[in-house]
Amino acid sequence: MDIEPCELCHRLGGHPLWRDEFCRVVLVEDRDYPGFCRVILERHVAEMTDLAPGERMRLMDAVFATEAALREVLRPHKINIASLGNVTPHLHWHVVPRHSEDRHFPHPIWAEPVRADAMRLPTPDRGTLSLSLKRHLS
Amino acid sequence: MDIEPCELCHRLGGHPLWRDEFCRVVLVEDRDYPGFCRVILERHVAEMTDLAPGERMRLMDAVFATEAALREVLRPHKINIASLGNVTPHLHWHVVPRHSEDRHFPHPIWAEPVRADAMRLPTPDRGTLSLSLKRHLS
Repeated sequence: MDIEPCELCHRLGGHPLWRDEFCRVVLVEDRDYPGFCRVILERHVAEMTDLAPGERMRLMDAVFATEAALREVLRPHKINIASLGNVTPHLHWHVVPRHSEDRHFPHPIWAEPVRADAMRLPTPDRGTLSLSLKRHLS
Repeated sequence: MDIEPCELCHRLGGHPLWRDEFCRVVLVEDRDYPGFCRVILERHVAEMTDLAPGERMRLMDAVFATEAALREVLRPHKINIASLGNVTPHLHWHVVPRHSEDRHFPHPIWAEPVRADAMRLPTPDRGTLSLSLKRHLS
């Protein structure tokens, strides 16, 4: 049993770009990673295999729509996708657009940085990203 | 264009546990992370949204079957899933069973280690894992 209240049950976790009763897509504030998004399940569930197969696919559809929107708006060098949840075991997917000269490239963003003064992708306009996401989700 | 030949086009990338014409599941040799698996697409494709929607779901089915088999066989504290591909842009999913006292917990396995002498999950028997995986894939 969790003693601390779950952060993702009580906070949005970023600027909302899209939301329905099942999940939400938020834009994370990360100085090094403009465009870093999270796709967060509304319910408190720890693992993908705790969901029914249809629900897994519904969540992945939102993840891939987020990837598609980020590729369309930012043209990143690579997309990184991860569901970790070791600190917050409430299903959330990190969708991170990467630049080949960013702070950690080619390493994961959780590794030690390799560049002190790194290039960044442009900061996406929230409205543009949100519109692109809606289009890819429909 | 790649100058180096793609490693995942030319090597299995681990001990094969399951394979069809579309993708393979391999057990990675990682001293700190027994049970670390990768789900690797047979074709050389960089991003999930480069696949047709049906193919994305087919690959995720294999990822979630791997998660289910690892949970069944190892009873990990948490499962971590990631598709990064910054070094090798050929679709492959890392499926990593985590122990709450492992080398990096609660951080991602790519972060700086937090324990020098960490606990590990038991090393899974390859035959048992392969059988569980087949069951979850059918």
